Amino acid sequence: MNKNANIESSVKKYMHDLGRRARAASQVIANADGQTKNRALNAIAAALLDSQSTLVAENKKDMDAGQASNLSEPLLDRLELTPARIESMANGLQQIALLPESIGELSDMKFQPSGLQIGKMRVPIGVIGIIYESRPNVTADAAALCLKAGNATVLRGGSEAINSNIAIATCIHQGLDAAQLPADAVQFVETTDRAAVLELIQMQDYIDVVIPRGGKGLVQRISDDARVPVIKHLEGLCHVYIDEFAEIDMAIEVAFNSKTYRYGICGALETLLVSKEIASKVLPALYQKLTDKGVEVRACAETKKVLPTAADATEDDWGTEYLAPVLSVRTVDNLQAAMDHIARYGSGHTDSIITENLNHARQFMRQVDSSSVMVNAATCFADGFEYGLGAEIGISTDRLHVRGPVGVEGLTTQKYVVIGEGTTRGT
Amino acid sequence: MNKNANIESSVKKYMHDLGRRARAASQVIANADGQTKNRALNAIAAALLDSQSTLVAENKKDMDAGQASNLSEPLLDRLELTPARIESMANGLQQIALLPESIGELSDMKFQPSGLQIGKMRVPIGVIGIIYESRPNVTADAAALCLKAGNATVLRGGSEAINSNIAIATCIHQGLDAAQLPADAVQFVETTDRAAVLELIQMQDYIDVVIPRGGKGLVQRISDDARVPVIKHLEGLCHVYIDEFAEIDMAIEVAFNSKTYRYGICGALETLLVSKEIASKVLPALYQKLTDKGVEVRACAETKKVLPTAADATEDDWGTEYLAPVLSVRTVDNLQAAMDHIARYGSGHTDSIITENLNHARQFMRQVDSSSVMVNAATCFADGFEYGLGAEIGISTDRLHVRGPVGVEGLTTQKYVVIGEGTTRGT
Repeated sequence: MNKNANIESSVKKYMHDLGRRARAASQVIANADGQTKNRALNAIAAALLDSQSTLVAENKKDMDAGQASNLSEPLLDRLELTPARIESMANGLQQIALLPESIGELSDMKFQPSGLQIGKMRVPIGVIGIIYESRPNVTADAAALCLKAGNATVLRGGSEAINSNIAIATCIHQGLDAAQLPADAVQFVETTDRAAVLELIQMQDYIDVVIPRGGKGLVQRISDDARVPVIKHLEGLCHVYIDEFAEIDMAIEVAFNSKTYRYGICGALETLLVSKEIASKVLPALYQKLTDKGVEVRACAETKKVLPTAADATEDDWGTEYLAPVLSVRTVDNLQAAMDHIARYGSGHTDSIITENLNHARQFMRQVDSSSVMVNAATCFADGFEYGLGAEIGISTDRLHVRGPVGVEGLTTQKYVVIGEGTTRGT
Repeated sequence: MNKNANIESSVKKYMHDLGRRARAASQVIANADGQTKNRALNAIAAALLDSQSTLVAENKKDMDAGQASNLSEPLLDRLELTPARIESMANGLQQIALLPESIGELSDMKFQPSGLQIGKMRVPIGVIGIIYESRPNVTADAAALCLKAGNATVLRGGSEAINSNIAIATCIHQGLDAAQLPADAVQFVETTDRAAVLELIQMQDYIDVVIPRGGKGLVQRISDDARVPVIKHLEGLCHVYIDEFAEIDMAIEVAFNSKTYRYGICGALETLLVSKEIASKVLPALYQKLTDKGVEVRACAETKKVLPTAADATEDDWGTEYLAPVLSVRTVDNLQAAMDHIARYGSGHTDSIITENLNHARQFMRQVDSSSVMVNAATCFADGFEYGLGAEIGISTDRLHVRGPVGVEGLTTQKYVVIGEGTTRGT
């Protein structure tokens, strides 16, 4: 056996061992009561606060290595753990502890003609694999949300955050210990070997679902190679369509807010569509507000008739998620043309119509095939807290199991519960 | 290019063309109203009844070929289309038309602190691939259920039923035509080339989910090779556990019914577990009933103390889905031992406890990790009709998206609907 094969075989053994331990621990976590899980969450928060100096010191190793290898400023910023960020991470865990307990919840328990009472019970999924990039707080957030939902986790963070992540994982294990839950329920992959990812996404016996958090390339590679189900979180190429029946001031406010609330979030507006019937009434004032704020507007030829000083939009613009102070604007013939544009260029994330017309609102809601369809609301609201789900692990652009913000509920599943009184069939 | 490469490339082209057409038609079907879809379902039923003689003639070709190639009697029986079976197929479609319309249904529309009203809308999945074996009625049933749920389908049946399936597909297209829905919404794969399956399960752009119906080998191969999500329907290795707090007569009736209602269904009882506290009280009478009915009982050593004339169970028996008049019986120490046995040998399909003890019932329901957990009910009830779902496409033993009987609801998904009044964030 050559050296590479040795390494590969040792990574495989290491990963299968993590998986086996996570699977065994998942049975304990699945049956733990809410109080015990909440005690663990609060204990993890306390451990993070107690370990502030260690966390900062370990994070400094990652920051130094990142600087040495010329990580970009935004990546270094995402990597940094400050005392304030550690506090906010601990705070997030305490908030997850405050969420209602949903495991074991019975619903729809209806009597059937046979006399059986049949409904559903909410239960954990089992073992969840999370693959993510530089931000170390994901280690705590993801483990906590999965734990609340009764799942074990196998976490694989970015290699640039390895020391920070290991230090956070230590706090998680302390917290689980303190609540007398198995530390094995949260496995952190300590090797930065890329072969570990391939093992993780192919261990059908040990992993029930993988959630990749990262760029489109990462998510696509993982979907292609996975042998376990994947819940994809792809980009947010979000649209606002200003209908000819829009209230002008509302349209300006909602479009402006959708773009400028925060440029870097996946719910940020990227392409504004405007009915040609209302373009000349709504666009000049909106353009003024946007340019005052420093947003570059790229317009189609039709739009440029109303906004002659705007930049030219190209075909590429309709397919680009800027995550930056740039907005493409297209004037369309009508609602159908707007929906056609969204179907062609959108990413199925979040799209909003501004209209006072009930029929247009209903058509848009029904026909636009996105994880969130909105009426007279800013796309930047697409977020688990705003939807009343509490913390989220991301926003699914997938179609099966869960679409939109993925909170505790999205990390669970339901089984059937059937209660009889000695009920038999066909007798 | 050699000949094989030519065939492969032509199958790929053929399948991609089917996929593209299904995808385009899916957008029409997704937005069709309930009345139109029901008109199509009834028209398909009428076309099947009108084409009875053609269907029987085409089926005869398959039967002849099957006999020539020595298909087994049970397979030939499953393959056969009689006038009565055609009527029952048509009847099934009419019943699907009578199911309530669920597409577009809004639920949980709650107001959030922002003032937004947020809930969910039930929507189709998109395009569903179905891969199945000999029974030709699946062609009509699966297409109909998917159509009711607003989905397009790509159907790939067994090669032994190819002529029957093509004749049924023709009736489906007539029915869609009659309701002015696109015939492209139901694609039947007319080639029996196995390469077509591989294309089907890898066309990420055209297929949203694949449902394989068939043996464990087929399902496992498809899961391994698929690049699209798969909803697995694996075997039903179902258990009844007779708890020490069971009512004796009820235990006998439910266990007997679970085994003997129909041997060949996936909800049939395969392994009976009995608490050692009650074994001697319940087993002799049950054994008598079972042997009178012609069921072979295979017992563990402990059970044989009570049933000395029973056959010996081996380790293999605990892992075998007989689908036949055979039952393995194991005496266990207590509830926990029963649940451990189910966790180790079960297939996560359907498991039932017979008990009068509330705490034992609740522990079993919570901890047994199966798509259906039952209390004082026969496992043979595991079926979409009995659960009030109407027709089903199968019983999912998967964990994500849908577990247990998969009816119309399991073939849909939900998106978020967000309604505001010009609502903006952080302003």
